[in-house]
Amino acid sequence: MNNSSEDKLNKVEEKYNVRTDLAIEAREMVSEEETEIKGIEVVVDELEDIDLSVTRVNILDDHGAKSLNKPIGSYITMECELMKQNAPEAHEEIVRELAKQLGDLAKVDKDTTVLIVGLGNRDVTPDSLGPRAVSNVLVTRHLFKEFGEPDEDDGLNKVSAIIPGVMGQTGMETFEIIQGIVNKIKPNLIIAIDALASRRTTRVNSTIQIADTGVHPGSGVGNRRKGLTEESLGVPVIAIGVPTVVDAATIVNDTMEELLIEMKKQAKENTDIVDMINSFNEQEKYQLIKEVLYPYVGNLFVTPKEIDAVIKRLSNIIASALNIMLQPNLEFDEITKFLS
Amino acid sequence: MNNSSEDKLNKVEEKYNVRTDLAIEAREMVSEEETEIKGIEVVVDELEDIDLSVTRVNILDDHGAKSLNKPIGSYITMECELMKQNAPEAHEEIVRELAKQLGDLAKVDKDTTVLIVGLGNRDVTPDSLGPRAVSNVLVTRHLFKEFGEPDEDDGLNKVSAIIPGVMGQTGMETFEIIQGIVNKIKPNLIIAIDALASRRTTRVNSTIQIADTGVHPGSGVGNRRKGLTEESLGVPVIAIGVPTVVDAATIVNDTMEELLIEMKKQAKENTDIVDMINSFNEQEKYQLIKEVLYPYVGNLFVTPKEIDAVIKRLSNIIASALNIMLQPNLEFDEITKFLS
Amino acid sequence: MNNSSEDKLNKVEEKYNVRTDLAIEAREMVSEEETEIKGIEVVVDELEDIDLSVTRVNILDDHGAKSLNKPIGSYITMECELMKQNAPEAHEEIVRELAKQLGDLAKVDKDTTVLIVGLGNRDVTPDSLGPRAVSNVLVTRHLFKEFGEPDEDDGLNKVSAIIPGVMGQTGMETFEIIQGIVNKIKPNLIIAIDALASRRTTRVNSTIQIADTGVHPGSGVGNRRKGLTEESLGVPVIAIGVPTVVDAATIVNDTMEELLIEMKKQAKENTDIVDMINSFNEQEKYQLIKEVLYPYVGNLFVTPKEIDAVIKRLSNIIASALNIMLQPNLEFDEITKFLS
Amino acid sequence: MNNSSEDKLNKVEEKYNVRTDLAIEAREMVSEEETEIKGIEVVVDELEDIDLSVTRVNILDDHGAKSLNKPIGSYITMECELMKQNAPEAHEEIVRELAKQLGDLAKVDKDTTVLIVGLGNRDVTPDSLGPRAVSNVLVTRHLFKEFGEPDEDDGLNKVSAIIPGVMGQTGMETFEIIQGIVNKIKPNLIIAIDALASRRTTRVNSTIQIADTGVHPGSGVGNRRKGLTEESLGVPVIAIGVPTVVDAATIVNDTMEELLIEMKKQAKENTDIVDMINSFNEQEKYQLIKEVLYPYVGNLFVTPKEIDAVIKRLSNIIASALNIMLQPNLEFDEITKFLS
Repeated sequence: MNNSSEDKLNKVEEKYNVRTDLAIEAREMVSEEETEIKGIEVVVDELEDIDLSVTRVNILDDHGAKSLNKPIGSYITMECELMKQNAPEAHEEIVRELAKQLGDLAKVDKDTTVLIVGLGNRDVTPDSLGPRAVSNVLVTRHLFKEFGEPDEDDGLNKVSAIIPGVMGQTGMETFEIIQGIVNKIKPNLIIAIDALASRRTTRVNSTIQIADTGVHPGSGVGNRRKGLTEESLGVPVIAIGVPTVVDAATIVNDTMEELLIEMKKQAKENTDIVDMINSFNEQEKYQLIKEVLYPYVGNLFVTPKEIDAVIKRLSNIIASALNIMLQPNLEFDEITKFLS
Repeated sequence: MNNSSEDKLNKVEEKYNVRTDLAIEAREMVSEEETEIKGIEVVVDELEDIDLSVTRVNILDDHGAKSLNKPIGSYITMECELMKQNAPEAHEEIVRELAKQLGDLAKVDKDTTVLIVGLGNRDVTPDSLGPRAVSNVLVTRHLFKEFGEPDEDDGLNKVSAIIPGVMGQTGMETFEIIQGIVNKIKPNLIIAIDALASRRTTRVNSTIQIADTGVHPGSGVGNRRKGLTEESLGVPVIAIGVPTVVDAATIVNDTMEELLIEMKKQAKENTDIVDMINSFNEQEKYQLIKEVLYPYVGNLFVTPKEIDAVIKRLSNIIASALNIMLQPNLEFDEITKFLS
Repeated sequence: MNNSSEDKLNKVEEKYNVRTDLAIEAREMVSEEETEIKGIEVVVDELEDIDLSVTRVNILDDHGAKSLNKPIGSYITMECELMKQNAPEAHEEIVRELAKQLGDLAKVDKDTTVLIVGLGNRDVTPDSLGPRAVSNVLVTRHLFKEFGEPDEDDGLNKVSAIIPGVMGQTGMETFEIIQGIVNKIKPNLIIAIDALASRRTTRVNSTIQIADTGVHPGSGVGNRRKGLTEESLGVPVIAIGVPTVVDAATIVNDTMEELLIEMKKQAKENTDIVDMINSFNEQEKYQLIKEVLYPYVGNLFVTPKEIDAVIKRLSNIIASALNIMLQPNLEFDEITKFLS
Repeated sequence: MNNSSEDKLNKVEEKYNVRTDLAIEAREMVSEEETEIKGIEVVVDELEDIDLSVTRVNILDDHGAKSLNKPIGSYITMECELMKQNAPEAHEEIVRELAKQLGDLAKVDKDTTVLIVGLGNRDVTPDSLGPRAVSNVLVTRHLFKEFGEPDEDDGLNKVSAIIPGVMGQTGMETFEIIQGIVNKIKPNLIIAIDALASRRTTRVNSTIQIADTGVHPGSGVGNRRKGLTEESLGVPVIAIGVPTVVDAATIVNDTMEELLIEMKKQAKENTDIVDMINSFNEQEKYQLIKEVLYPYVGNLFVTPKEIDAVIKRLSNIIASALNIMLQPNLEFDEITKFLS
């Protein structure tokens, strides 16, 4: 094997073995059981009527950060099957809960100026969540500039928004574009929306993660090489993400894992078989993934057939929650009317 | 397990075990080696400069039909990696070859009146091949009606086209719509274009199958319950199909098969292990598929990320080949200019 | 002037001089005042809270038909500025009123089987009203076929729907496609939705006309040559239309008319001027239209900039009203959730 | 009349009376005849085989700038009816000529780094020219960053591109976004593409203007309040514009003008009539425009029906010409293959 294909191998292995954009999955990967991990705090809430769970994972210190391979901060995951379905009443509840959680995390007041960033490629359906959400966000910053300060009673916050595109479209890193704009318009807060990859089909399109740690390199359905964080931009960055795909390599890998586990169970005390199963190494597994997915390997995604309709629903949920959080003086009905 | 879920199980099993829309894959499933099967004729050609292979599978009699689980007739499969890539020169060659093969199969002359049917759901990217191809086909039937018969020298054939939608959109079976139209406008030939499911990622978006046996129930990315065939419509039906997805359940199943084969190889003479592997039954495999793909099972597809761009290329190739075959007096450049 | 351009001239003159798809405009063209016309009945209602007017023009006999150049029947016109705006509460009222008026006209009961037809070109924004409305209609006919008759209590009506495309896309007249399907599936009622041309910018996107007289040749933004009527199809046809454009030639013509009227007023008793104005004939006016709109003449439309968003709103209003009328056992919220 | 509506009136009057984005129209407005104007140089070329004219208007000094109400600089206008038609061979010639003219104006060499800006609203068809052109431009800047400097022989120029959106979508002025990005990535040259308004239907979709003076406030189909110019951005700005609409108010105004001129001709020596016509003032004309276009006035556009297809062609022409100019070492066929 030559160097370049070995590199590629390592990259793919790293990808399907370890990486997840969801703190809740990182937490599960450390140990499936609910044992405590030093430096990690987990709190779970339930909204029973729509079967919505809200899990807050706080990474408190370096030990916790190392364990989960994520920066120190708060990660809130909302999970609800109804999110991806055509269920407007449930969506209203999800929107209100998301707005509340965002409000807790972001601490917006009437003087906050916000820049919303819709990450991803609008021309690739499962990656278009960010751009589509942003196109339904109520932007208001130009109203202030145009007509002078509105009355304080209007309660409008100054919101601007950008869909920067992806590197293959712009020739620029998203970070460069956002930093340029941030330097110019100087917001107090950035909120970035992105489509994520999940390890599990269960979570696809039925999970929203929000975090106060920003967007990190290698996150998202596409690849980003430089993060959007308070450290890099000088402004706090809230990230909102929804897993919209599972990498096909992950599916294949999981299948093998499950099959091997099942075989071990059946083998019981037959140590020959158990030994053989245990001896089945990463390199062999990766060979098999390559065979099954040839000639695509790293570029095949698993999505449900109705992905177009689902992305539309999810981006409306996120846009509505942002509008409610950022424009508290408007009514729910006034907010939803801005959706297109 | 209750009856309804058992039914569902049987349906899924049937799906990932046996079914393929491609005769070439059905042929491979009978035996991977190139041994002869009674009632089946296979001829392979190569266009070396663009690495295009053309495989003609003729099913000659009932024995052959039973072996491949496909009706008697001719199935031509063109395979070329460049089909899905941005490679205009190669596409021109593919278009010309496809036009030639279609011409051989369809035997169109200047009096043939043709109805082109674009099957599938235009709002689901991998299922939109048929609708998109049809929207680039040069329709001419109304020109005859409007201005009287054009001069024979014009060489225009009478072509009409329809995008019928899918049953969930229309409340009608595609067959009902097409039969209604056929009874009214009485074409001599129907050409139906559809997105297919493949068993193998290798073939996804790099294979075109044309057949003179029509479209059969259960084919396509969506489901059709009644076929479009000469038998049901009273008019010969040529089917053009491209596999644009692999069912995620197929990927998982194939992974298990490959893993079990690999383990058998490693087990060598250890009969305990081989016995155990052999005892791993369909029911257990299906349970595992369900676990890996939960909660979706039958509704998850594997597609490459750039599916939008690829479907556009493939539908242009098919539309151009149809235009060349059906309007032989027009030049290639005149033909491609109708693409949008 | 050669024959062909003379023909064209006549066609255009006919177009901008006389033709309107709206009975209410035809009525106004006969006399602006509210004098009575033999064979015509006009009743006007108002919903004051949203400033919605409902005008029912009944053409009772041949004299009335001749006066308005429209067939005998009922024409109901709903006018409301809020229709085209982002005003969800007003839209709910408009939807309910439209459903009521449609119900009065169509007299649907639980045994009615309905075919909805979305006329127009989905790729030309102002002509895409019909296709977009149809894609939000709840189709149910296949549910009956698949699972046997649902309980009567379900109250679902059998609804099917088709987007036939336009002649330039299909090579067939819309009439041929619809007649073929009607012969096959035999509905009791057809409802056809179409974008219309208005004479006045005032009515663009703020008027819905429903009529029990079907769709007539030459109506719509595109051109249809054969009508969809009870006479031609053997099934009652309700037409729903919204004027989405004004022909640019109409705007130019109206400008000239208004200017000439204004000049006459200013001229007062100066008979020389009045004579000259009166002598300004149709031919001269048409020359001027040609000069102003060169090189387009008959193919230029006047639309508001936000036409995309407006067409979406209008098609949702129509689809919702149809869903309410056709599925009376569903709640309003259940109905709106089918909108995409 | 209150102040605010008077303001509005002045704005509209200003708009339909004086403003045009095209230097060639500004030139014509000064005097229809080809007399010389001090400070203005006009050179006209013809490519006869495709009936393409190239007019270069050089504004040489302040006097010229004042006469045409445009800044000092070079304005090149290419006019050709085939531009908007489906005519691939003619488009190839137009592309090559546009590339040549752009090259003369921009003086790009292998060290030039370019930022392409696609102005306008991608969701409003006639305003989407800039965004669509940019999505077909070959961006290369990230290739340099990723793999180190390519060989000089590759001849790739460093190109980046951005679609900033419009103020109603972003809450920011386009100028703010572009200045932020320019400060960050420091290109040597900016090329901005925009849809323009024309005074004449003749020029709609069959004219391309390029200028070395940048984009000025109030240009374009939408409104921009701060220009993109070398003065404001510190980098030379080439503007590429195509008139894609005529304001409906312009059409109405022109109609009145033409009618009045025609009447004067007919009136001959009848001084009463001529006096009356001359006395018809701007205020009266504006009242009439308002009546004809009520309730829209400033927001109604005249577009041809096939605007979608035409914008696609025009944006492909512009993108191809940019790719040829910016990547001189690539062949024409390689360039066009990047079009989607």
